[in-house]
Amino acid sequence: MKLQLALDVCTIEEGIDLVESVRDYIDIIEIGTPLILEHGLRPVALFKERFPEKLILADAKIMDAGEHEAKLCFAKGADIVTVLGVAHDSTIAGVVKAAKAYGKQVLVDMIDVHEVRSRALEIEKLGVDYLCVHTAFDIQSTGVNPLDELRLITSVLTTGKAAVAGGVKVATVGDIVKEKPEIIVVGGGIASSLDPVVSAKRIKEIMEGK
Amino acid sequence: MKLQLALDVCTIEEGIDLVESVRDYIDIIEIGTPLILEHGLRPVALFKERFPEKLILADAKIMDAGEHEAKLCFAKGADIVTVLGVAHDSTIAGVVKAAKAYGKQVLVDMIDVHEVRSRALEIEKLGVDYLCVHTAFDIQSTGVNPLDELRLITSVLTTGKAAVAGGVKVATVGDIVKEKPEIIVVGGGIASSLDPVVSAKRIKEIMEGK
Repeated sequence: MKLQLALDVCTIEEGIDLVESVRDYIDIIEIGTPLILEHGLRPVALFKERFPEKLILADAKIMDAGEHEAKLCFAKGADIVTVLGVAHDSTIAGVVKAAKAYGKQVLVDMIDVHEVRSRALEIEKLGVDYLCVHTAFDIQSTGVNPLDELRLITSVLTTGKAAVAGGVKVATVGDIVKEKPEIIVVGGGIASSLDPVVSAKRIKEIMEGK
Repeated sequence: MKLQLALDVCTIEEGIDLVESVRDYIDIIEIGTPLILEHGLRPVALFKERFPEKLILADAKIMDAGEHEAKLCFAKGADIVTVLGVAHDSTIAGVVKAAKAYGKQVLVDMIDVHEVRSRALEIEKLGVDYLCVHTAFDIQSTGVNPLDELRLITSVLTTGKAAVAGGVKVATVGDIVKEKPEIIVVGGGIASSLDPVVSAKRIKEIMEGK
């Protein structure tokens, strides 16, 4: 089980400082969509060079031109690239093709997929590595959380591994860990907590059953 | 009726040269998703400065954190920002809120929306400016084209204006013009044609009924 730290609303320098401080507890560094929007893929290369022992995920949320856009990400050093579950199958297949060419991985972001169960089964057949249930930031204030969708998806997947994102924090990670996802994504639950180091350490301990 | 030139698979320098050559015929410069992925929003500011008489569209394809991501784009000089029609209503509403704060515009990319008619009506109520039917690049080789969806959407919209994208070229733009969309997006139909200047000129003439 891996802990992924999402870097979303921060500068590159703040992101580097945060990763330095929680380096012992995280496995994957996510270069978030807003960061890519601002800086392009430069932070992917930069964090890969600075933290070579970590996996770097480029949250490109690819929706079209799958093979081309994924290649751009992998060429810059991404270990995992995201594509949207609402994208066309041929787009997801293009991302998988690019990943295989680079020996890297694909995470499908299931954000705003309505029929999670049936779509997960379709997507799994395309050869992706991870399917990530994801409560959109824009609806987290309504109290929705990704636990129910995580249970749904872990009950149907056979080859793909489950990941989970959207508002995860110290108080909620225990129930999530019970579902045994391969990746747990935490953003604000670490970055915006009172003490990011304490939060990251505690989340990692809970993931390790401590 | 406006002609939007999509800059997707090119370097910034190639994009500048192309826009220079067809400057007389286009109204909107689209900074395409692959270009944003590579360079972030830097090309938005750059093209706005270089071609101040044109509208600049940032094809951010926003899927979450609508207000935040749209503000990033508008702050860099974008006149129009794209959000996905498959995104949650609150995400689209966030993009609209940011656009109103900046006095700018929102285009909803209807790519991979399954119920175009009913979803268009829901989205129109959120106060967006344009709804763009869009045949994904990754399925254009199957012969699908956006004309049927364009007819569907122009028949239901009242306040929102129609836009159309996906494989449009000299040979197909005539039928599209008959449906009177507000924006016609052309990428490869100009950039990859034998003579981009001739193609852009001809497309603009057809749009003007010549």
